[in-house]
Amino acid sequence: MSKVLDDLYATILSRKGADAQTSYTASLFSKGTAKIVQKVGEEAVETCIEAIQGDKEKIKSESADLLFHLLVLWADQGIKPEDVYAVLEAREGTSGIAEKNSRSQ
Amino acid sequence: MSKVLDDLYATILSRKGADAQTSYTASLFSKGTAKIVQKVGEEAVETCIEAIQGDKEKIKSESADLLFHLLVLWADQGIKPEDVYAVLEAREGTSGIAEKNSRSQ
Amino acid sequence: MSKVLDDLYATILSRKGADAQTSYTASLFSKGTAKIVQKVGEEAVETCIEAIQGDKEKIKSESADLLFHLLVLWADQGIKPEDVYAVLEAREGTSGIAEKNSRSQ
Amino acid sequence: MSKVLDDLYATILSRKGADAQTSYTASLFSKGTAKIVQKVGEEAVETCIEAIQGDKEKIKSESADLLFHLLVLWADQGIKPEDVYAVLEAREGTSGIAEKNSRSQ
Repeated sequence: MSKVLDDLYATILSRKGADAQTSYTASLFSKGTAKIVQKVGEEAVETCIEAIQGDKEKIKSESADLLFHLLVLWADQGIKPEDVYAVLEAREGTSGIAEKNSRSQ
Repeated sequence: MSKVLDDLYATILSRKGADAQTSYTASLFSKGTAKIVQKVGEEAVETCIEAIQGDKEKIKSESADLLFHLLVLWADQGIKPEDVYAVLEAREGTSGIAEKNSRSQ
Repeated sequence: MSKVLDDLYATILSRKGADAQTSYTASLFSKGTAKIVQKVGEEAVETCIEAIQGDKEKIKSESADLLFHLLVLWADQGIKPEDVYAVLEAREGTSGIAEKNSRSQ
Repeated sequence: MSKVLDDLYATILSRKGADAQTSYTASLFSKGTAKIVQKVGEEAVETCIEAIQGDKEKIKSESADLLFHLLVLWADQGIKPEDVYAVLEAREGTSGIAEKNSRSQ
């Protein structure tokens, strides 16, 4: 199911250099890193606000906005989703063992 | 590859009600929604700072922290990754057609 | 010189209930707390981005935006600038003594 | 009353180059701009969270934390409070006139 993120990342990458007039993603790339970072920050703020308010539909919607702009940031910086997944997997391993050890004590 | 997120989400869910002394994730759940939201906000800030500074390794690491805490927030709120992917997929469809149409004009 | 903040706060207060069509401040009050909080968060993000980039004029400008929206938030919540100054003064006292003591050791 | 901010700024400036072991402010300066920016971002997030939750005492306390770290950021960047007040005053003037004009129409 989370092939969705990989497909979305591929679509985002394909917008690099596309017409900023017809593609929102292309317009973000053309505005540069600071603008993309600003959007990531803004969507994070909105996700936090909706989460405190506890409106599930809005949390989903703002989380989707946050993920989308995070993927644009990665594409802008030459980072692939796999790069981030690898960091998560490495930690998962460590943490899994750490939790196992602590439980067996 | 992005099965990683689904596996991580399953692990996170399994920590609900676990011992907060031995599991960082369980300790987040026990502290409640406001604390989880605060962590999402803090990791977003750190991702933004590293992105402006352009350190690729640190962007990957902070992005992983942000994703992890976002997944914890979803688990806390009863939101499944598929729920958020569905929002992204619905938009992707729309946006794909919109961009196609605008290109063919 | 910092009478400016007190005057600005008085102006902001006077916009409560004013016409949201002609006053930006009145429009913020009419949209409610969550919108005001969102603006505080967004301006904080922009201040952070400009600070990392080190553009002094933009840091001043974004800091002014952040302070303005923070004052609107206080007005929205029935908090007076003096209330926040009182918190700062109480800490200043403590910290001043703490630093003095540590220096005299 | 808002002399408090000017006094606090003077105290903060006096900590530049002080012992990072005994002064929290000095330790922030010694860690550098990115760390100070991170604190501004974190305190903004906490102010937002408390504001949505509507706890007046906590909003005051987090606002004080935010202002303190913003002043440290200004000191770090060679910005004086008057510089930011000047931006606010210039806008206030403009906006005052703009609102007056729009009301008299």
